[in-house]
Order: sequence, then structure tokens, then C-alpha cells
Amino acid sequence: MSAARRIVVIGADAAGMSAAHQALRIAGKSGEDLDVVVLERGMHTSYSACGIPYWIAGDVDRGDGLIARTPDRHRQLGVDLRLGATATRLDRDGRVVHYREPSGRLAQVEYDELVLASGARAVVPDWAKVADGSLVRGVRPVRNIDDGHRWLRLLGPLDGSTAPRRVIVVGGGYVALEMAEAILRRGIKTTLLTRSRVMNTLDSEMGARVESVIQQAGIEYLPHVGVGELLTDDRGAVKSIRTHDGRLLRADAVVLGVGARPASELGAEAGLPLGRYGGYLPDAQGRLAGGIWAAGDCCEVVHRLTGEYTFTPLGTHANKQGRVVGENLAGGCALFGGVLGTAITRFVAGGEHVEIARTGLSSAQAEAAGLRTIGIVTEGSTASGYMPEARSITTKVIADRDTRKLVGFQIVGGEGAGKRIDTAAVTLWGDMTVDQLASMDLAYAPPFATVWDAVQLAARRVADRL
Amino acid sequence: MSAARRIVVIGADAAGMSAAHQALRIAGKSGEDLDVVVLERGMHTSYSACGIPYWIAGDVDRGDGLIARTPDRHRQLGVDLRLGATATRLDRDGRVVHYREPSGRLAQVEYDELVLASGARAVVPDWAKVADGSLVRGVRPVRNIDDGHRWLRLLGPLDGSTAPRRVIVVGGGYVALEMAEAILRRGIKTTLLTRSRVMNTLDSEMGARVESVIQQAGIEYLPHVGVGELLTDDRGAVKSIRTHDGRLLRADAVVLGVGARPASELGAEAGLPLGRYGGYLPDAQGRLAGGIWAAGDCCEVVHRLTGEYTFTPLGTHANKQGRVVGENLAGGCALFGGVLGTAITRFVAGGEHVEIARTGLSSAQAEAAGLRTIGIVTEGSTASGYMPEARSITTKVIADRDTRKLVGFQIVGGEGAGKRIDTAAVTLWGDMTVDQLASMDLAYAPPFATVWDAVQLAARRVADRL
Repeated sequence: MSAARRIVVIGADAAGMSAAHQALRIAGKSGEDLDVVVLERGMHTSYSACGIPYWIAGDVDRGDGLIARTPDRHRQLGVDLRLGATATRLDRDGRVVHYREPSGRLAQVEYDELVLASGARAVVPDWAKVADGSLVRGVRPVRNIDDGHRWLRLLGPLDGSTAPRRVIVVGGGYVALEMAEAILRRGIKTTLLTRSRVMNTLDSEMGARVESVIQQAGIEYLPHVGVGELLTDDRGAVKSIRTHDGRLLRADAVVLGVGARPASELGAEAGLPLGRYGGYLPDAQGRLAGGIWAAGDCCEVVHRLTGEYTFTPLGTHANKQGRVVGENLAGGCALFGGVLGTAITRFVAGGEHVEIARTGLSSAQAEAAGLRTIGIVTEGSTASGYMPEARSITTKVIADRDTRKLVGFQIVGGEGAGKRIDTAAVTLWGDMTVDQLASMDLAYAPPFATVWDAVQLAARRVADRL
Repeated sequence: MSAARRIVVIGADAAGMSAAHQALRIAGKSGEDLDVVVLERGMHTSYSACGIPYWIAGDVDRGDGLIARTPDRHRQLGVDLRLGATATRLDRDGRVVHYREPSGRLAQVEYDELVLASGARAVVPDWAKVADGSLVRGVRPVRNIDDGHRWLRLLGPLDGSTAPRRVIVVGGGYVALEMAEAILRRGIKTTLLTRSRVMNTLDSEMGARVESVIQQAGIEYLPHVGVGELLTDDRGAVKSIRTHDGRLLRADAVVLGVGARPASELGAEAGLPLGRYGGYLPDAQGRLAGGIWAAGDCCEVVHRLTGEYTFTPLGTHANKQGRVVGENLAGGCALFGGVLGTAITRFVAGGEHVEIARTGLSSAQAEAAGLRTIGIVTEGSTASGYMPEARSITTKVIADRDTRKLVGFQIVGGEGAGKRIDTAAVTLWGDMTVDQLASMDLAYAPPFATVWDAVQLAARRVADRL
């Protein structure tokens, strides 16, 4: 009765479920009978981790809103979904995954093909843990739906009646900035404390603009500060942070926004190689080894411009990679094209609105990669200067001095600025020069752009200097 | 005393002034002494014709706001600018331009190099003219600053105290739609009457969405209706329109939004060839003949996808072409890369907000060009569905069945939808396939996009069908 080929997927979020459904869809067309089993250690499927800060800010009414597809829906579509199922051991020779059921009972499932899509986990520094390894009360990352519920309880209702007096967000990346926005918008005193600086995937002259806006909005900003230890009250809840340089900062709650690491233990213990960031290293088809595939945040991905594996956990890559694996599971030959390091966020609070986006390599990254580049910062406008919609937009263009090709692009600006990064991302994807970017036929009308779009104006200035 | 090479430019708007300043800038660097004379028939320089509807709507306080560079500023930068100077004859053998000064006196200027940048004129149908060829009172196009002032007088103050009761906008293109918005926003009954349909550079299923929105907003929409004649009152002012099918429509004012034609008489009379749209036909360097160049709305431009000359008068092309000509005048070898037919506008009135954009070929144009294409309409969202910013976006992707290359893209959607067209425009410029567009690393965060950006979702659906 083993007529149907069995695919076991570990992880029921973007990558795993994209793979599962794409495989089912294509197999369905060709008449192949696939048996797709998905093991998910949590109780949720296909949710938007990126949406959690907006749920906490009050933009999204209910955590359910973040769920793109419920378990029931996945089952209706033909997936044998097992929730609360924690994979404990991978037996590659026997093609068996051992797992623990919610009841604690051990179980196992055989596979013909295995998809590792176990995602990433928030980094939890030692100072955030108590002796048994669990989190200090009042200290939490922002990684999954459960974290969201906990934060809503910690922060209390939107009216602020039971809100903590001061929350310290530790970290300077996207999640840290978005959580700082969410907490500040609730009227709570918010500190952003980071070992380096906020948005350090931007070059420093661009990051400085973000630093200035968040302080203008009312965030207490402490860059280049490390956490020494947490002090707790007699109930074991955090009450303050002692910094590396000895300052004592009151903290009624602490957001851990210090990044994520691939959840790759299962494969590592079974002898699958990991990269320098601790992620699986799939090839462009998504293959790790015979019969084993991987996709999503548990993987490192190839950067198109450097050709090297990097770690950029993002739902948009997870969906694309999952789909590639699904097609290949069904006999196709799809390739994941790699990443450019494109990213976007915004900070809207305290009367400020800033959009932040980047793609490709920063000047710092380009230098590390041994490229000879030029980088120029240009001031522009999102709309014709006479229009009420016009907002300032600062761009940084990085171009290769030898080939004139675009290497990277960064944007910090007002409403309407951020998504322009896609213009640069497509230029990078197409391996085009700054001269080409400056000559393209982009859309112009007064409410939408200046007559030389800000992106082109910037490219032109660089082209003139090369 | 003829040491300095003399460049005569006809027309002091985007194309002409870009050429003049770029030539001066480069010559200045290389130490060449250029004598640049600009003849302008009007009294304004470098103004944004595209901004006029927003000035009329009240978004822009003063017409001066539309002027990017004043005559004084051009003169400070070294241009011998002669306003009110109407070129009357071009003597190619003698390299002389004859012109009439504001006083009526005839004058002439010799050139080494001539740049024709005389722009385009609004099309004025016979029914809009009185016997001597001038416009019926209350009937006017929207082409230049003078038109703007006239419309402001005709429409009266923003409080509506002296407003006409009903204005009929004749035409269905960008200017017509933008003027309909401007007039409706002033609380005036607005009719849009067109021989074909509004936004007919979109395929009809996409245009239908615009038709529905403008009617929802309160525009009286009369498609497929021609104007038979105008009826005037005893002061000679328009009082009604009789349509081709015999209907009589009250009209206290009539906006002519039926397009523009290249102002190319001067060159044509001197034997320079014109294209099928009546425009000059410069090569990629901007050259028409020995010592004669052209740029801007008086020209036809090459469409990158068909290789054929087309007529798309837009400030963004004029600026780019002018710059190319300027570089070449100064001894460079710059090339204008052609156009994709990228365009954008919006309609914001009566509680509606719709953004409209297109690039490349429509299905109709692709068919006319003999391509085998597929065109698919997809519904998406500008942001993650759970975000308050999320607006609907409808896209149409047109792809080549043989090469899988993107051929065209159209967007109709809410706030944040329109400028996404640039993603498609860059894809077209880079000659890429819909598969590539679907795999690119575009920017994702919940306030800015769905996890598969609407543009990619659409491309992916087409790729799946090819």
C-alpha cells in the first residue's frame, strides 16, 4: 500500500507549506498520488511573523489576522498536518523522522523525500535567561504568535492603563525598530539600546538619518551600548538593565530584537553540513542531499552579487524557495535565483514618518567584497516640489568603478520613498549599469515623482562621476 | 570675432534648456567657449505643464510654483535667452533662424548648431474655433501657463462663488482625466465626454475599472460620444455642446483634452522630414541633419519594444533627450534609449482614490505588432491584507508566448499602487522574462507589500500559464 510517494515536511510556515502545496498542485495535474505529511512543533500554520509588531502596535485587531492559512484549510487542501509534533531525530539511512507528539508520546514517519523548513529562532543572549535556561519574566523576543500574545499581555490595553513605564528594546535591526515604533505609539517611554547602531545594514551616513528621526520622535536612543546583566525584582521579573559601561537603566520590560538563528539542529545532528551562520546550504534547486531538501529561514541563501551564502531570514524568500522545492519535488527543475539583500521598513510615530529601504551591497559590504566602488548620497523629492504630496527622499547609490554596474542602493525618506527600492532591485537583478538606470523610462506625473525620478537623479549623478 | 561656437535653441522648456545647460556645463569643463542663444515664443521658461491640473485643483498655490527655472536664472547660468521671440523661418543653407521679436520687428540669428525644441501644441478641433480661427469663449486646452491662468479665471475662486454650473471635459487621456478631477474637486458638475473611452492606452478590461471609479466619484461619463458643434450665447461664449448623436448638453465651459501635436512647422517648411504623427525624427543621438538637432515634444521617439517611432509628449522624455543632445553638442556621444510608453496618473475626488499606470505594449498594441502574447488580470493588495494601509491593486501582465519576455504591464489600484509600474518598466528595459520578474528579490514588509508583491504575483500567474 505504499503506492503514493510520501513527502515529509518539517515546519508548517511559509517555506514548508509553499513546498507542500506546490508539490500537491503539480502532482495533482499529472495524476501522481502524493502523501504529504507536515510536522509542526507549534500550533499555528502560515502566519506572518513580520506582522507581529503591527499587531502589537494596534494596527491589526487580532493575532488571527496574521494567519494566512489555518490548519483546517491546509488539511482541506490535502496535507496531513500534525500540530505540536516536534521532530527529535532524523534517520537518513532509514529515511525516518522521529518526533514527539503533543501528548509526549514518541512517534515516527517514513519519507521518500524530506523537506526541512523548520525556520529560525530568536537569538536569546545568556543575560536574558534564568538558571534553567528559560526567559527572565518581562523579557521576550518577537518571533511567533505566542510572543505576540505575551507582548500584548505585558503592554496591557491600548489605553495604557496597565502599561509598563519604560520598555527597553535591545537590538538595532528591523524587528527592534518596528517594536520601538509599536511601543512608542502606545505612549510608553521607549529606549532603543544596541551594541552597534540602528539599521546598520545601511551605510552610516544613511543610518544617521534614521537615528535622527527616531530621536526626534521621542525614542531614547543608546547606540554602541552592550547589556551587562539584568536585575530582577523579588518575583523574578526584570526591573533594570546594567549596561556594559555600568549604567543602570530602569526596564519594566525588555524586547529582544537581536536577531535570529537557523533552527537547523535536526539536520546537523544527522550529519548535514551547515554554513557559517548555522544554516543549511541548499543548492539552487533546494536540495541538501539525496531525498532531502530545505527551504526558508533554516537555510542560508546565495547572494547574487557576491555568490556567497548569507543569512537573510525573510518570508518573501521562504515563499519563493518553498515553491521552488515544491516544483522540484513534483519532478520539475526550478531554481531559486538568490537574494540581493533587499529590505524595507518604516518608522511612523511621534509625528515622524520615515521609510527605510536597501538592496544590494552597502559601501562597507562592497569594500569587504574587494570591489572598487563609488557611493554618492543625493537629496530628492518623492513628488514634484510644488505638490502637497512631496516628501524628501535621500538615496545612496553604490556603483562599480570598473563596470559602471549598480552595486547597491539605499533609501531613507518620507511617505512614498521606500518602495522605490524595487526599481534598483530590478536593475541589480538584470545586471544593469547606473547609466541604464538613469536612462530608463520610469513613470512620471507630479503626484508621483519629479521629472527625473529621485532614483534616476541619483543614478545620473553617479554616472556623471564615474 | 566668431571664436565661440554658437548654438541656437528654439524653445525654452525642458528639452531646450536641458540641452543648453548640459552643453554649457560640459563645454565649460573642457574650456570651450559656447555662445548659447535660446528663442522662446512665450514669456515663460522651464515650467511643468503636467502640474497645471493640480494648480487648477488648488493643490498648488501659484502658477509660479510650476516654474522650475526662471528666465533670470537661465541668464545667470550663461544662456542668451530671448523671450517672446517667435521663429518664423529656418534657412538651412545660410544657417540662420529668422524670428519676430515681441515688438513685431523681424530679426535673425546665425547658428553653428541648431536645436529644435519647440514642444507640442494642444489639438484644437474645428468645432472649438470661431471664424478667425481663435477659440470660442469658455473653451480652452490645458497646455501652458497662460491656459492655467485662463482656467483659474473661468472657474473662479475655490469657494465656488462664481463657478460655472457645468464643465464638459472633452477627451479621455491623462490631461482630460486630471482636469475632470480638478473641476469635480471644486464642486462643479463635471462631464467627461470622449469619442472612445477614458484611459484607452489601457486594455478595455483595465480601463473599465477606471470608468467605474470616476462615475462612483460623481463624474458624468459619456464614452463613445463625438462633438457635433458648440452653441454659443449672444456674447459668443459657449453655452452647450451638440453631440454627434444629436444630444444637447449644457456646457458653461469646455476643456479641450484631445491631445497634442508636435510644433514642427519650422523644420517642415525647411524640408526636414516628419513622421506619421507630424514630429521630427531624430536619431538616437538627437540629430536630424547636419548641424540640426531636436529634442522633446516636437519629436517622435523610438519605442524600445517595437523599434518604431511613436509620439509620447512627456517632460520626462524631453529632459532626457535634451540632456543627450546637450552632451552631443559638447562633443560627447550620448544616446537616447527610447521609450516604453510608461505613464502614470491618478484620480482623487468624490471619496475615490485610484492610481493608473502602464508600461510597454497593451494586448491590443502587441497584437497590432504581430506578437503572440498572453494577458492576464490579477487582483492583489498594496500591503499585507491585515494592515490598515492595504488597498486593492489590479494588474494586467502581458507576456510573449514565444520568448516568455514581459511585453507590457498595467495597474489600476488604490494609494501606493501606481508607482509599482517602475518595477515592470525596469524589467522591460532589461529585456527580462516574466519568470525573472516573479523570482526577483523585491522589498517586502507588511505596510508596503504582500509577501509575494502584487507585481510578482501577477508575473508568476502568467509564468504558470505559459
